[in-house]
Amino acid sequence: MPEYRAPTRDVRFVVNELFGLEEYGHLPGFDMATPDMVDAIVEEAGRFCSDIIAPLNQVGDREGCTLHPDGSVTTPTGFKDAYRQYCESGWGTLGLPAEFGGQGMPHVLHAVFEEFLSAACHAFMMYPGLTHGSVSAIMSHGSDELKATWLPRLVSGEWLGTMALTEPHCGTDLGLLRTRAEPLADGSYAITGEKIFHSGGEQDLTGNIVHLVLARTPEAPAGTRGISLFVVPKFLLDADGSPAERNGVRCGSIEHKMGIHGNATCVSNFEGAKGWLVGEENKGLAAMFVMMNAARLSVGAQGLGQAENAMQNAARYACERQQGRAMGQRQDAGAAADPLIVHPDVRRLLMDARAFTEGMRALLLWGSLQVDLAHKAESAEEREAADALISFLTPVIKGFGSDRGFQTTVDMQQILGGHGYIAEYGMDQFVRDARVAMIYEGANGVQALDLAGRKLVRDGGAVAKRFFALISNECAAAGKELGFIADPLGKAVHHGEAAAEALLANGAQDPDALGAGSYAFMELAGTLALGLMWLRMARTAADKLAAGEGDPAFYEAKLVTARFYAEQRLPLATAYRHRAKAGAEAMMAIPAAVLAGEA
Amino acid sequence: MPEYRAPTRDVRFVVNELFGLEEYGHLPGFDMATPDMVDAIVEEAGRFCSDIIAPLNQVGDREGCTLHPDGSVTTPTGFKDAYRQYCESGWGTLGLPAEFGGQGMPHVLHAVFEEFLSAACHAFMMYPGLTHGSVSAIMSHGSDELKATWLPRLVSGEWLGTMALTEPHCGTDLGLLRTRAEPLADGSYAITGEKIFHSGGEQDLTGNIVHLVLARTPEAPAGTRGISLFVVPKFLLDADGSPAERNGVRCGSIEHKMGIHGNATCVSNFEGAKGWLVGEENKGLAAMFVMMNAARLSVGAQGLGQAENAMQNAARYACERQQGRAMGQRQDAGAAADPLIVHPDVRRLLMDARAFTEGMRALLLWGSLQVDLAHKAESAEEREAADALISFLTPVIKGFGSDRGFQTTVDMQQILGGHGYIAEYGMDQFVRDARVAMIYEGANGVQALDLAGRKLVRDGGAVAKRFFALISNECAAAGKELGFIADPLGKAVHHGEAAAEALLANGAQDPDALGAGSYAFMELAGTLALGLMWLRMARTAADKLAAGEGDPAFYEAKLVTARFYAEQRLPLATAYRHRAKAGAEAMMAIPAAVLAGEA
Repeated sequence: MPEYRAPTRDVRFVVNELFGLEEYGHLPGFDMATPDMVDAIVEEAGRFCSDIIAPLNQVGDREGCTLHPDGSVTTPTGFKDAYRQYCESGWGTLGLPAEFGGQGMPHVLHAVFEEFLSAACHAFMMYPGLTHGSVSAIMSHGSDELKATWLPRLVSGEWLGTMALTEPHCGTDLGLLRTRAEPLADGSYAITGEKIFHSGGEQDLTGNIVHLVLARTPEAPAGTRGISLFVVPKFLLDADGSPAERNGVRCGSIEHKMGIHGNATCVSNFEGAKGWLVGEENKGLAAMFVMMNAARLSVGAQGLGQAENAMQNAARYACERQQGRAMGQRQDAGAAADPLIVHPDVRRLLMDARAFTEGMRALLLWGSLQVDLAHKAESAEEREAADALISFLTPVIKGFGSDRGFQTTVDMQQILGGHGYIAEYGMDQFVRDARVAMIYEGANGVQALDLAGRKLVRDGGAVAKRFFALISNECAAAGKELGFIADPLGKAVHHGEAAAEALLANGAQDPDALGAGSYAFMELAGTLALGLMWLRMARTAADKLAAGEGDPAFYEAKLVTARFYAEQRLPLATAYRHRAKAGAEAMMAIPAAVLAGEA
Repeated sequence: MPEYRAPTRDVRFVVNELFGLEEYGHLPGFDMATPDMVDAIVEEAGRFCSDIIAPLNQVGDREGCTLHPDGSVTTPTGFKDAYRQYCESGWGTLGLPAEFGGQGMPHVLHAVFEEFLSAACHAFMMYPGLTHGSVSAIMSHGSDELKATWLPRLVSGEWLGTMALTEPHCGTDLGLLRTRAEPLADGSYAITGEKIFHSGGEQDLTGNIVHLVLARTPEAPAGTRGISLFVVPKFLLDADGSPAERNGVRCGSIEHKMGIHGNATCVSNFEGAKGWLVGEENKGLAAMFVMMNAARLSVGAQGLGQAENAMQNAARYACERQQGRAMGQRQDAGAAADPLIVHPDVRRLLMDARAFTEGMRALLLWGSLQVDLAHKAESAEEREAADALISFLTPVIKGFGSDRGFQTTVDMQQILGGHGYIAEYGMDQFVRDARVAMIYEGANGVQALDLAGRKLVRDGGAVAKRFFALISNECAAAGKELGFIADPLGKAVHHGEAAAEALLANGAQDPDALGAGSYAFMELAGTLALGLMWLRMARTAADKLAAGEGDPAFYEAKLVTARFYAEQRLPLATAYRHRAKAGAEAMMAIPAAVLAGEA
């Protein structure tokens, strides 16, 4: 059975040593996040996820969820009890607002917990996974009454929130959605329609479920300008605010999926279900995107988490499994064979996984810190800069993080050979679970389009240029001892600048050229962003070594991994630039019927 | 449900137009392969695989195989009947030797059939998939008595062959194997041991199963120099040569796997099972490698086949599913949304799949033609050159073909979004099935090591240099109208030459440096090999268009896809070169205990 130990040491390095979180102590919520407090929280969060949640992962995969004839759903053995402990220990409330019962800690600590939780059990994590997004959407767009009614028990975890967007004919293109919302005399609405891919749409963990549902009012204009957001609970509340009458929403079936079997992905039928408008009529997408942006950062954490868990298990296997002889001088003469880890190609996969997970962790947490700063920084200028940065990085963290996360699980499965392909070792589950992160909350092609078609274009490339300039400047300022990464990164970032310019110029001529180069641009941005993280981590590690502080093996490993990243990943920048610049001509030329094999 | 139509038009293009197979008509077996005959065989093979085999694919995945208490195994519904038709129609015998009842056609036509069969149902294909290898191993190393006893009914398909190599503690490193072979008075051996990952080790398709088993005789030296190969049938034959007494080999269990559920992957227990030596004692690996090399080319066909089937279904979905609006001028004003295929990023994935499948098909068939030429070419020089080329290309076809085949199934699944993740559409099965091809018959890291550590090094890079020079020369000779691919390919091949030189030089200093760069070298070799195929296909297409022959849309699509390949895939050559040259230092520096999280 696979085993997971939360990477607490690395998190403490990022938060305390790399970011120096205590320097933000003057900001609300950060005053509590002293280094000692951070250490305690991180270690305890790690223990909870490693000991209580991780053992559920294979069970959840094998049992899946059960839909009963009465429409109720049973989650896998152990999920309910673990969720009770999750609520009791307050892990879900870390970064939630104090005024509704949350702990009001920095969002960055919530992101730490999210990585651990999704690494331990992706399917379990998805049940509470939308809480932050639901709370943020209601906080920012809901009426005071809605807030008072729903937030305290969403924050405490007594109830769980879901997001009901997709319909059979309507996924990415929400403008097509058909679910109707008829106004009722009491100011509420009657919601009718079918939603699919509704994660956690039914479960047995909480006494109520609070669905956030997109629907159209009777006079709504067509397309995305006629979509409104509603709160639709599973149970209506009585006068005391307790769940009472069953609302008109039922789980019709549970999808059979490639992975995340422990999460109930429902087809949900809304039949005149009572709901309340969140924010303004026809402005539902804006409210939904508050939730969606939070969800997208979570997905980055999921890609990272699955990669980390898979890596730990593959690394242990590689150290234990004896197979073949070292090519170099590392042979153990006393054994019949050497452990797999002596083989350079096995090391290549492990080092690549390490370079991704540690780099991605730094990027995810740095991005999450921007979420905090966008709300809490002292000056409007700082808040705007942080907001622009995280807005640019969100599709990168989601798209690049889930792509590379999935690829890492595949690589780690490969290390076990045939043993990775059979269910017993659990490696195939990491692959099957991680796969969904590339698809949901906006498929990665949509992330690329968001990055290139919106985030890059809307300000004429200003945010992108600032981001690339930041990297350039840090490369230029790096000391000679960091040249092994600062020099290649400094060159690679020119490819980023050139790609951005080419996309802007080509896109102005032909919108398809922008779409055609968008994916390569996302991969390039991700590669450079991780490069920046590795430059910074190398700098911090070099400083610590020079100062003789802490465990030298830890900091030496950081320096070597930074070098590996520079050697193995930064060379891809050239290829991405070529791809981004190539335009749409060859891509669009073949008639659709020929591609479909009909001509 | 997914639907598969064998790509017969493209195969006919490759075999008749690109290769001009009739030019080899003076060689044995090729005389039968006239263009008309090739067309008839290819179309009929396509029909058989599309109509009879493909409908079994999802059934096989859902039902899997069943092990009964008596040790017998039932294959999924329909497999037995389809196998009967497979034998009756003689598809398995195409390229097998006429002296034992085969049709004696060129191997290249067998490779065509192998692609179609594995595309239609990977799990089904695996049952007869080792026949060619088993027959070749017995042909080349077995005694006349063994040949007479086993070959006719292996060739006809009345019995199926398997390969029993792996043991629980021994996968890649066959030197560790423990299965014992005790000589018996009658010249046979009693085989005892446990084999795992034994594909088709038990089934209900044939009246006997002929296992080729690696084992050690009592006085055998340790390691790979003490391994012998044995024929061990499920049933011993009576005096008439009919299956009679049950031999001492039993299926102990069937593995639960990520995919290929329709194939019984057995744990097989040999308990004094009677077996006969194939070839010389302690020379089993040489005989086994005859079988293994055939199997590795098959695996390339499997990667290709799964990619092709997934691509067809994704392309149809992209043409049917309406979602979002075209960015450019392609909007259908009458519909609420445009089909997915208007989106450049969806096109990017489909074009990349097309560039891989068509390029890989040409490479696989060109490689298979070398297998023919290595045996049948007129001069010893031609035979040696063909043998050297296919020996170099085999790990590329296996490793690169299965890697990119898997990646293509993932990309195609992505086009369906959430619908690709649920089981209903069958896209996740392509991913799960294709995954195994990267692992078995030598994991792809082993292929890379075979390529760089053996095929490149053993002649000081001579074959590699000849291969790269071939590409260079064809680029230089290409007309100006082919410059769009010949120019970038001509530049990319320099990276191949530089990488080979660096590997040879670095490897001479440090064997680990060779291992460290081997994977990138395999990816580079594959990228260049497909580039050569695209250059040639573009040339043939341009000639046909200039001559006004055939369907212009087909040839125009070839030219555009060649351009796409040049724009999107050849830029990777630089990165692979950098990686291949980087050496082992950063890869090997971190102590194993640190990687395993124990320090």
